[in-house]
Amino acid sequence: MDVSTLRDTYRTALLEDVLPFWLKHGLDSEHGGYFSSLDRDGSLLDSDKSVWIQGRFAWLLSNLCQIAGTNGQWLSAARSGLDFIDQHCVDPADGLMWFHVAKDGQPIRKRRYRFSEAFACLANAAYYKISGEENRAVTAANFYKTFKAHQQNPALSPFPPKFTGTRPSKGIGGPMIALNIAQTCRAAAIPGMDWDAEIDANIAEIQSDFVHPDIECVMETVAEDGSRIDDHFDGRTLNPGHAIEAAWFILQEAKFRGGDAQLTKLGTQMLDWMWKRGWDSEYGGILYFVGVDGRPVQEYWHDMKFWWPHNEAEIATLLAWQLTGEERYAAMHAQVHDWSWQHFPDPEHGEWFGYLHRDGTVSNPSKGTLWKGPFHIPRMMLMGWQICEEIETAKETK
Amino acid sequence: MDVSTLRDTYRTALLEDVLPFWLKHGLDSEHGGYFSSLDRDGSLLDSDKSVWIQGRFAWLLSNLCQIAGTNGQWLSAARSGLDFIDQHCVDPADGLMWFHVAKDGQPIRKRRYRFSEAFACLANAAYYKISGEENRAVTAANFYKTFKAHQQNPALSPFPPKFTGTRPSKGIGGPMIALNIAQTCRAAAIPGMDWDAEIDANIAEIQSDFVHPDIECVMETVAEDGSRIDDHFDGRTLNPGHAIEAAWFILQEAKFRGGDAQLTKLGTQMLDWMWKRGWDSEYGGILYFVGVDGRPVQEYWHDMKFWWPHNEAEIATLLAWQLTGEERYAAMHAQVHDWSWQHFPDPEHGEWFGYLHRDGTVSNPSKGTLWKGPFHIPRMMLMGWQICEEIETAKETK
Repeated sequence: MDVSTLRDTYRTALLEDVLPFWLKHGLDSEHGGYFSSLDRDGSLLDSDKSVWIQGRFAWLLSNLCQIAGTNGQWLSAARSGLDFIDQHCVDPADGLMWFHVAKDGQPIRKRRYRFSEAFACLANAAYYKISGEENRAVTAANFYKTFKAHQQNPALSPFPPKFTGTRPSKGIGGPMIALNIAQTCRAAAIPGMDWDAEIDANIAEIQSDFVHPDIECVMETVAEDGSRIDDHFDGRTLNPGHAIEAAWFILQEAKFRGGDAQLTKLGTQMLDWMWKRGWDSEYGGILYFVGVDGRPVQEYWHDMKFWWPHNEAEIATLLAWQLTGEERYAAMHAQVHDWSWQHFPDPEHGEWFGYLHRDGTVSNPSKGTLWKGPFHIPRMMLMGWQICEEIETAKETK
Repeated sequence: MDVSTLRDTYRTALLEDVLPFWLKHGLDSEHGGYFSSLDRDGSLLDSDKSVWIQGRFAWLLSNLCQIAGTNGQWLSAARSGLDFIDQHCVDPADGLMWFHVAKDGQPIRKRRYRFSEAFACLANAAYYKISGEENRAVTAANFYKTFKAHQQNPALSPFPPKFTGTRPSKGIGGPMIALNIAQTCRAAAIPGMDWDAEIDANIAEIQSDFVHPDIECVMETVAEDGSRIDDHFDGRTLNPGHAIEAAWFILQEAKFRGGDAQLTKLGTQMLDWMWKRGWDSEYGGILYFVGVDGRPVQEYWHDMKFWWPHNEAEIATLLAWQLTGEERYAAMHAQVHDWSWQHFPDPEHGEWFGYLHRDGTVSNPSKGTLWKGPFHIPRMMLMGWQICEEIETAKETK
């Protein structure tokens, strides 16, 4: 692997393509915060705002300032998102965040699940780290606590459940996102929680309930006790990109703990198993959903190629290579990197398409929606750049 | 158009392929009611039951008895679905129907919207027509009233709204389904409602709020006063197959009223406009979603080809041809019929695939899910067979 060239590829794409695209087209100069529903050329398709994306882009910009040095434009854009969150994204009636608001902050929609809080926590923690503003630390801790409380007790939701208690289940998204935000809070030294204990508990839940060695698989949805729900679509549907994202959160923890062998083994196994299940041997790229037993899932668009599973797989394979030195991870990284960078980037208007057909042709040519915004792609580029630098530094000091 | 051959095509496919497939694989001999999540060969993928599909298949079977003559197997299968609905599909706590139950009737999920009631109404009305059982008429009228009450006043839902009042909107699904079930209740002589008035009111709402002649378009979602929501994805997203289904409900009313000119004009305009917007000139077939202004919609699978829009377009073009005699409708019917029958039927195990990629290749090879069951395809075959017979009879008597 030519690590120096790869580092430049990530850094250049981030600083000269993806970030400028979103800073040019995604900032709302009137009301603050971020637009994300952008057409191929950056023009606005829908002026509504995703609360997830307010938190995610503010995190990205704050984190970039921390890694690449504070830049006035990035800092001011980060603050714009945080201010918009403070002013418009929390329902004063119950203290819970909206999911979707109008450009001026008028609320449109709330959801049962509290991932809005999770991404707002990320943003506040990262901004606290660069600014030292105490209120950001308090806000981050509070959003974490809300996310955790609702994960542990869904009955806290203002919405009655639509699912009965007949077949209770849970998804890997809860513990993996909790793990990721706890890592971010620890890195920012947010007071008020024992972040190591949070991290350990979430990794333990992923390992005991979602990682199933008997079938070499990471499940997306399981019964409350971690057993498999084999006879129904929900229980049989795997999301390999999601499991690979969880794998790199764990590999990142292994690295933080100086190359912890058990966590490295857990993370690389999760990556290996889900790569095998998710890689499309016919057209290349990573399938969105696959059935655990090879039979059909219910989703009709299961075989589409989305940007983010590919971004997560690039990070996971690069981290696995950094941690283990095994050449096969360099080969896997090259495989997913080459496929992604051949198919997703838009040669005409910059940035990446998000939604490809199975064969790699573009399905939806927009650059953003309420779901796709400036998060997975620039996060991959920022982390890829960092990891490559670490590898180079390690080589030089050998 | 060779009407006699077409009639045989529909009748043979219904009686020798599609219906036998579902009677063989879809009946639950243990608990009653219908499975719908079937793999390509008919084997069970998920034993849960869709409440929509219980009503829809019981309607289909009852209607078939009425048209083709009562057959013991069809009648007993219809009763099985009706009994399952009676015993398991209504929540005794609030009198509202579930959306999704386990095979033994244990409830899994309720939804805000009351389309479960709409399809249960259809089934009870059609069964009343063949059986004369009074309780079926009462049940049909009650389900209609519940559906209508919740359409008019969503606050009746046991679930608080997830959408705020910031940008109220409504979908064409409400009035078009109300129109269809009112027609079915009138045909069955269900007492207790003025069905003509119901039908008139729903057609009036479709025409005034969803049909927009200034842009020659049938909108899927509009503001409460029928104005367009141009600046947001939801308001710009068209569903041509859905609008074409609404068109044939209106054409059916035109036929019922002896060829009513105004309704014929309304229905054929809706068909013409949405055919133009929905037909895929590159690969053939009908696109699932298109943007009103040609810009991207938010759905990434917008360009897939689903079975049911094609079924609705076959019915609509055939009815338009029957009513107007215009040759272009015969040509449109041949166009959608040829594309559909080339791409959807499974030559190996019978029945039709439901979910194709834009280019017509199969995406999901299953024969059913909680959404695809024995409804649109056999309804098209049954109605096509009937309409062809009417056309032949009319020719003979000329």
